[in-house]
Amino acid sequence: MDNSVKEVVMIGAGPSSLAAAIYTTREDIDTTLYEKSAIGGLAAITDIVDNYPGFPEGIEGLTLAGYLEKQAERFGAHIDFGDVTALREEGDVKVVTVDGAEVKAKVVLIATGSDYKKIGVPGEAELYGRGVHYCATCDGAFYREKKLVVIGGGNSGFQEALFLTRYATHIDLLVRSKVSASDILQHDMQKFVDSGKVTIHLNTTTEEILATDGRVTAVNAIKNGEAITFDTDGVFVFVGLLPNTQFLEGSGIELDARGLIKTSERLQTNMKGVFASGDVRSGATMQIASAVGEGASAALAIREYLEDYDRAA
Amino acid sequence: MDNSVKEVVMIGAGPSSLAAAIYTTREDIDTTLYEKSAIGGLAAITDIVDNYPGFPEGIEGLTLAGYLEKQAERFGAHIDFGDVTALREEGDVKVVTVDGAEVKAKVVLIATGSDYKKIGVPGEAELYGRGVHYCATCDGAFYREKKLVVIGGGNSGFQEALFLTRYATHIDLLVRSKVSASDILQHDMQKFVDSGKVTIHLNTTTEEILATDGRVTAVNAIKNGEAITFDTDGVFVFVGLLPNTQFLEGSGIELDARGLIKTSERLQTNMKGVFASGDVRSGATMQIASAVGEGASAALAIREYLEDYDRAA
Repeated sequence: MDNSVKEVVMIGAGPSSLAAAIYTTREDIDTTLYEKSAIGGLAAITDIVDNYPGFPEGIEGLTLAGYLEKQAERFGAHIDFGDVTALREEGDVKVVTVDGAEVKAKVVLIATGSDYKKIGVPGEAELYGRGVHYCATCDGAFYREKKLVVIGGGNSGFQEALFLTRYATHIDLLVRSKVSASDILQHDMQKFVDSGKVTIHLNTTTEEILATDGRVTAVNAIKNGEAITFDTDGVFVFVGLLPNTQFLEGSGIELDARGLIKTSERLQTNMKGVFASGDVRSGATMQIASAVGEGASAALAIREYLEDYDRAA
Repeated sequence: MDNSVKEVVMIGAGPSSLAAAIYTTREDIDTTLYEKSAIGGLAAITDIVDNYPGFPEGIEGLTLAGYLEKQAERFGAHIDFGDVTALREEGDVKVVTVDGAEVKAKVVLIATGSDYKKIGVPGEAELYGRGVHYCATCDGAFYREKKLVVIGGGNSGFQEALFLTRYATHIDLLVRSKVSASDILQHDMQKFVDSGKVTIHLNTTTEEILATDGRVTAVNAIKNGEAITFDTDGVFVFVGLLPNTQFLEGSGIELDARGLIKTSERLQTNMKGVFASGDVRSGATMQIASAVGEGASAALAIREYLEDYDRAA
């Protein structure tokens, strides 16, 4: 046996791979996670996580991320910082390139997540989680009886704006040029436009998000060439998802049309011994609970794969 | 609209449906859960849950169950005690029989879980979680450098005993009559038998589990007609799973060979508007994390189903 081949390498150290690592390391399966930015992924930069089951009053995202990390490390997970830029097969071993160096493993779990596309205006990054949001399911409920600005005229912009009508008293929906949402979504939206709950602004480009005392208060935009200000309690941006799968180019790992990784029901990709879970997986819900659950399930599938692997060795 | 039709009925109030209810009720979807025994399901009767992500030092099962219940109720979930004995369709409405009365709903989530089959000997129920276990993935890690008795000569008995060799110093594997595990599992077991780590006892019937100061110390059995005592630190019983799906007899809901509910990737059963998640679902891992994750994912699928339902109405 080649001692330089690790048992399990996980790419990314967000909720999904940390959950998987809790399982694998608790079973004495040597596990190394490579993270290129923040341990805890999107959870770590979320203000309050209200719907992760087990915390009745909600929990700060950074605190939850810390708990997940601590729990994985308690059982012996190795979390290293490093940028994974490539993945390939070499016989029945997987080779990942980490900061330019090659690391070999019997099994790889890809849990690099997805990022929300930003519009790139002043105030957006600074006010993230304090009035600027990208997930209506996660944060919509904080805006009961409040005014909102929603940015995006595609399917996700319309879908999420429709969802936010449950909570908000009024929504200004800013569409850069024309609406590209499906007919059915446009039809569903019409009743809210008719009732005055939603106002759609076409040819409207967001320029800046404004705040007072660190909370969003307004959005400056250009509508049909003229300056306009929308007073609001919060801004939801839905201009697309960026799955962190760029490093898989040329790897042969199958992606769906959105760039998310296709897996079997047991969370295995089309490459044997390479699994994927969480927000980077095709069908992902972008919810911490789902990512964590998939991480646990992936760990059990990985254990079985390793049993077969070692039996064949 | 018929006001007597509920939005969502969930059958069972374990981790999976409580997670789903956190999501649905937070989105103002009226949700009623019916539970016939303990809120929190198997989690509630688990001593320490060591691997539910988010609790670095583990958490008492009953405490975790309480947190899940509190979180669901915080957003407005109705949890009622009641025994669901039947489920049927009536047009696009589902009808469940609860304590003999009919309750109608647009959507039903089945999350009734599975129970582990018991051997039914003195000490088994009394010592559950304090030396008597049914899930190696959950509780095996508590037995590092300890002696174990494993009961069961089928696939699951062998599979889990093999898994427990990671932790235990020695395992007595008690098989009531003959081994029925697959050839491959028997082959895998042979090296542990050869090394002396596992001793297989055929024609061995467990009679009683003994304890001192509330912790398991020994198992009394009859081997080939003669009394025998096995000193041990713990007992793992693997004699089968009992999915709580008896009430679905005649409902038309498709089950797999083990009696677990088949679902699509979006967790819908073959009956439109009826979803299933957690330990009762075909492919279940019997892990709280997975059950919770599936509950969250089911809630998002339920929301979409309701949007289509209300659009068609």
